[in-house]
Amino acid sequence: MNPLAQKNPHRRFNPLKQEWVLVSPNRTQRPWQGQMEKPVVAAALQYDPDCYLCPGNVRAGGARTDKYTSTYVFENDYAALKLDAPRFSSDEEGKGILVAEGESGVCRVICFSPRHDLTLAKMSVPEIRKVVDVWAEQYRELGSRDDISYVQVFENRGAMMGASNPHPHGQIWASRSIPNEVVLELRGQGEYLREHGCCLLCAYRELELRLGERVIAKNDSFVAVVPYWAVWPFEVMILPLRHIADVEAMTDAERDDFAAILQSVTSTYDRVFDTPFPYSMGLHPRPSDGEEHPEWHFHAHFYPPLLRSATIRKFMVGYELLGSPQRDITAESAAEVLRQAAARAV
Amino acid sequence: MNPLAQKNPHRRFNPLKQEWVLVSPNRTQRPWQGQMEKPVVAAALQYDPDCYLCPGNVRAGGARTDKYTSTYVFENDYAALKLDAPRFSSDEEGKGILVAEGESGVCRVICFSPRHDLTLAKMSVPEIRKVVDVWAEQYRELGSRDDISYVQVFENRGAMMGASNPHPHGQIWASRSIPNEVVLELRGQGEYLREHGCCLLCAYRELELRLGERVIAKNDSFVAVVPYWAVWPFEVMILPLRHIADVEAMTDAERDDFAAILQSVTSTYDRVFDTPFPYSMGLHPRPSDGEEHPEWHFHAHFYPPLLRSATIRKFMVGYELLGSPQRDITAESAAEVLRQAAARAV
Ligand SMILES: O=P(O)(O)O[C@H]1O[C@H](CO)[C@@H](O)[C@H](O)[C@H]1O
Ligand SMILES: O=P(O)(O)O[C@H]1O[C@H](CO)[C@@H](O)[C@H](O)[C@H]1O
Repeated sequence: MNPLAQKNPHRRFNPLKQEWVLVSPNRTQRPWQGQMEKPVVAAALQYDPDCYLCPGNVRAGGARTDKYTSTYVFENDYAALKLDAPRFSSDEEGKGILVAEGESGVCRVICFSPRHDLTLAKMSVPEIRKVVDVWAEQYRELGSRDDISYVQVFENRGAMMGASNPHPHGQIWASRSIPNEVVLELRGQGEYLREHGCCLLCAYRELELRLGERVIAKNDSFVAVVPYWAVWPFEVMILPLRHIADVEAMTDAERDDFAAILQSVTSTYDRVFDTPFPYSMGLHPRPSDGEEHPEWHFHAHFYPPLLRSATIRKFMVGYELLGSPQRDITAESAAEVLRQAAARAV
Repeated sequence: MNPLAQKNPHRRFNPLKQEWVLVSPNRTQRPWQGQMEKPVVAAALQYDPDCYLCPGNVRAGGARTDKYTSTYVFENDYAALKLDAPRFSSDEEGKGILVAEGESGVCRVICFSPRHDLTLAKMSVPEIRKVVDVWAEQYRELGSRDDISYVQVFENRGAMMGASNPHPHGQIWASRSIPNEVVLELRGQGEYLREHGCCLLCAYRELELRLGERVIAKNDSFVAVVPYWAVWPFEVMILPLRHIADVEAMTDAERDDFAAILQSVTSTYDRVFDTPFPYSMGLHPRPSDGEEHPEWHFHAHFYPPLLRSATIRKFMVGYELLGSPQRDITAESAAEVLRQAAARAV
């Protein structure tokens, strides 16, 4: 690592999204007098009669959750996207300014386990493997539709990240158009392939494996790194060692290894501040728009908000919303903290 | 407004940033079981002996805040940017992937008033006018430096938006390079000017003034609208009626009118949920990189997080971080709520 960058304000380029992050390692002494978060408490009950995701319970909309015993998928009762949404495209006043178009799609909820008190971090690898299989099936089913161009799988974990329920679950929002972040990543990967003749994330993975300083976990099929251009304090990206485009393309062994590295990353997180670590995570598979996308390399992002303790988070506010994202600790220090947390006995 | 868009999921294009926002007006019935914010309480003391921004007090770093009587500017004790930061530019391993460069700049704090218990919403227009003059001076001073290409003025208001102190204050982060958001807005405005031969935001302002449905306040020099492509529930943009590029270019009367519309927007916000409304706001003046930028139209953004009450906020999490921003209420409904709040007697 460039020693100047370790100690001085600098910016780093994110080649996936083609934008910059401001890094201020000089700023870590800053005292904090702002908002303290409520400490996160793990759910205690295996079954909560008031939880609409626990097996057999009635949901707010009136539907009943099945008495499931492993994973469970259902349509979101308050879906942001609907398959039968009317199609239209309008440019009010014809100036290219008030531009809208109908958007259709599907929103589903995936319960990871019938047990209310579990999280990915506390589930066994075989249990997580079942979740991976559900993601693969959902990707195949939804992605094969003509009216779906992107299948976004994600999990909001913890109240701090907007999760309205601690029951272990994730979501799928699959849409007719390709979302902004994926459009950026398509361009970043496409341009890199055209200019360098190789896959951006394959080349990146090889650099990280060789340098080691940002690697936090690795197995036979995947590596987890704090990206060089990380924005969130303990942001992590999981990359397959093979150039594969989505979960469906994973071999049986790779699916097991994906489950294992998810278990490893999430349980490491919980050890950092001895608290269930909140995060948003998501998979970025190849778009399902019918194109081949040889440039696309499957990956998963983890965006956790905590910064200095279980109750002090990073705020993405003024400068971040109006200028560029900013972070205090470097990606290398964050990786070191995560490696130490991983090494601590549970 | 397109009636299909009023009731059905759709996406709207933001021509300034050239990206999309997903709008799901069908989703407003969704119950909320997630995190509730602590209700915001207004600061009660005019002078707080423990506040490092109150006149005459000692700050965490040891410096003493002047006994100021109007506005007060000082260098941030824990600056994210420094003028003397070393310059470098590196591409470790030469693959265009681990790219960093030194970033230099200045971070300053601007106290808006010596009174701890005030906010922009509670200050008089002549008092806010003094803040506008400080912004103009700072923009002139910092922007004229060869090593500053952008002067970002912003305010994080409320603990929910990361403000570590309720004392009325804002910040300036001025940097050698142009931040991401401004790069996007430069491109959006530049392409519009080239393709349509007119300024994007002048054309937009005229549409909004004619249609009226998203306008929430107006005076002789400025208009405030909920942008057609708003992301935050009650997002607002302030536009000058003249094509001016920055605060320095404002006439005396325009500066008064800018102060007045800032007062109007912030006090309207406080009336929406009868609570001091948290937000991040910022000015977007023309870059100070020495180029002329005829395409650039000065504007201010307000990004407030509250959604349904003083304690229920919008979370920009999973889908927003991995896909595209999403909102439930339309820009038109939000504008209607704000107009009604403005009309309520104080
Ligand atoms: O400098 P402050 O007000 O302490 O810090 C606040 O605003 C900064 C600029 O938006 C953010 O980077 C910080 O995360 C936030 O807590
Ligand atoms: O659908 P949920 O989990 O209730 O909602 C949560 O995730 C969504 C997708 O990221 C966000 O749009 C909401 O703001 C958030 O509260």
